[in-house]
Amino acid sequence: MKATVHVFLKPGVLDVQGKAVENALHGLGWPSVKDARVGRVIEFDLDATDAEAATAEVKAMCDKLLANTVIESYRIDIA
Amino acid sequence: MKATVHVFLKPGVLDVQGKAVENALHGLGWPSVKDARVGRVIEFDLDATDAEAATAEVKAMCDKLLANTVIESYRIDIA
Repeated sequence: MKATVHVFLKPGVLDVQGKAVENALHGLGWPSVKDARVGRVIEFDLDATDAEAATAEVKAMCDKLLANTVIESYRIDIA
Repeated sequence: MKATVHVFLKPGVLDVQGKAVENALHGLGWPSVKDARVGRVIEFDLDATDAEAATAEVKAMCDKLLANTVIESYRIDIA
């Protein structure tokens, strides 16, 4: 099964990378760009019997390694 | 409209971050994890009349700023 994890800073946390991208796009002639946010995406294959078991495993991976849950939130997609 | 851009290293380019994640997950007790790849995701809002125009604009943003097209490929989703 293929897992995709999106990791973003939590809404309250200042996203300096997103702010920098937004400012750069404004400067390059796209003033309509708003609320830019930059995150990480991690894709991998894993052996799992069903989507529910895979989601539980990937959730554990996120909490242990893939995300810093103090300041980041994550979303898991299993396909 | 909301644009989401996924940026990954091209298949031929060694993804050291992905390799590190894969090795770490193996070490933490998930030996079945394979082909881990780490990329960036950039989300933002923009004013556009229709999805086609938005896609063309975001493509220009990717080529100019968001991706290094020498070593990275990107995927655009407009919602």
